[in-house]
Amino acid sequence: MANTERNAMPVGCFGLAGSYTYDAMQAYFAGQAIQPVYGSHFEDVIQAVVTREVRYGVVPIENSSTGGITDVYDLIHRYDCHIVGEKYIKIEHNLLGLPGATLQDIEEIYSHPQGLSQCRNYLKYHDWKLHPYFSTSQSAEKIRDEQDIRLGAIANKTAADMYGLQVLASHINDNTMNYTRFFIVSADAEESDEMDKITLVLTTQHKPGALYHVLGHFFYNAMNMTHLESRPIKGRPFEYFFHIDVMGNLRNPVTARVLNNLAQHCNYFKILGNYISDRGGNPDEIRCNRS
Amino acid sequence: MANTERNAMPVGCFGLAGSYTYDAMQAYFAGQAIQPVYGSHFEDVIQAVVTREVRYGVVPIENSSTGGITDVYDLIHRYDCHIVGEKYIKIEHNLLGLPGATLQDIEEIYSHPQGLSQCRNYLKYHDWKLHPYFSTSQSAEKIRDEQDIRLGAIANKTAADMYGLQVLASHINDNTMNYTRFFIVSADAEESDEMDKITLVLTTQHKPGALYHVLGHFFYNAMNMTHLESRPIKGRPFEYFFHIDVMGNLRNPVTARVLNNLAQHCNYFKILGNYISDRGGNPDEIRCNRS
Repeated sequence: MANTERNAMPVGCFGLAGSYTYDAMQAYFAGQAIQPVYGSHFEDVIQAVVTREVRYGVVPIENSSTGGITDVYDLIHRYDCHIVGEKYIKIEHNLLGLPGATLQDIEEIYSHPQGLSQCRNYLKYHDWKLHPYFSTSQSAEKIRDEQDIRLGAIANKTAADMYGLQVLASHINDNTMNYTRFFIVSADAEESDEMDKITLVLTTQHKPGALYHVLGHFFYNAMNMTHLESRPIKGRPFEYFFHIDVMGNLRNPVTARVLNNLAQHCNYFKILGNYISDRGGNPDEIRCNRS
Repeated sequence: MANTERNAMPVGCFGLAGSYTYDAMQAYFAGQAIQPVYGSHFEDVIQAVVTREVRYGVVPIENSSTGGITDVYDLIHRYDCHIVGEKYIKIEHNLLGLPGATLQDIEEIYSHPQGLSQCRNYLKYHDWKLHPYFSTSQSAEKIRDEQDIRLGAIANKTAADMYGLQVLASHINDNTMNYTRFFIVSADAEESDEMDKITLVLTTQHKPGALYHVLGHFFYNAMNMTHLESRPIKGRPFEYFFHIDVMGNLRNPVTARVLNNLAQHCNYFKILGNYISDRGGNPDEIRCNRS
């Protein structure tokens, strides 16, 4: 992590300038003076948060095409930091090239393996050599640095702007309804009356019906569960943490009592954060499954 | 897909000879004459299965460190094929080099980004240039082809044997209890009295408590749920398929009735397969979370 300046609030950002995480950070902190501090690993960002090198950190947590990003949950949990916000960003991949390049010039493509795989239908109509690379934004940076008109990158529009590239083809992802969810994390929990979403992690007791009874606590107390995901426990193959999102505010005594009661029935229980849900720019497109 | 021979049974295998999927295939079909047919994308393998180019296909489905591999569930589901078996393989990464190379010769490392990330603690003590590549086995193949003593690959022991490389460092993954689960898929469902595990996919009705009531069907009928995973629905951001494993045999009329009854209460319901569970070489290490 490097490059903090005075006055502006330092915010940790996974990846490079121009990444999708960068887009999420800009959208979440719109109107505030922030100083991005980039980390090339999830853990760099989380460490900068807990050592208070930065006030907040922004990390991807869930991609609507590929599912959860386990490592990030594990880190939030292990470093004991707090989720204080969320942001959804629509993933729109573009083919970027050097200024003056045309589609006909392109022979080789760089992107994160997920970027390449998310554009597979588009790519199969072209006889390009594909290079997996560290990230979409680093791929754009590489194209700028190489100055070879035969090279293209798959990345977002922001990366084109930041690295002086042009968009040769836009919206090339197979699935055009692909969102990524980002968490805003902090060393300290925050609270306000506007907060309406709680993220929990728990492990159930090893007996039949344990998860069923967990969900019963929410159902019989009219707490709407918007997300449930089972994630492996490292070093204990095929045992699971459950990551659960429920609507609620911890200041509400009923909510606090339900969670407190539930915690007594779990092997492990931790509240990762209470925050204001992102209802998104297009609420019709972002719906949650009520369970 | 290429290279089928007569007599031996053709089996589709994701990736290359020497991959972890190859290990799973060899372990599952031990003692049978099989002819591997390699596919470089999950979809290649599934297509070879449904067109009956191969009798079975072997694909990774769940890694105990990184969680599920959504695309594979989506493909099994979309191509309407059947899970007829499962196999767990312990992931043990090694640093491979050319014959005669020593650790001191190594300057650059190739591996799948996940291989690089799973060995991060080991790698941070070395000042090596890291190259993300398509897969662990293709990384081993590349080292053999380049014949440059400065290059190393992170891959399994089988890849060392197949590509004539030597193991320069073994068991270098951070997490030494890292298993991947593989499915064996077929164009046709299979049945036998020995089958004891059922994999389902369903979407719940959009009303509070829907998932709770789904789990109630299992709990009140003493069906042990061993896995639950929510996966995004492509093109419908943040709605979820639930992938569920329960213990049971579809020939059991009670089990069949429970599932039939449950199906009536879901928006979407499909049995992906009934098969014999892999109790593994070390059953103490492979336990499932009873929910």
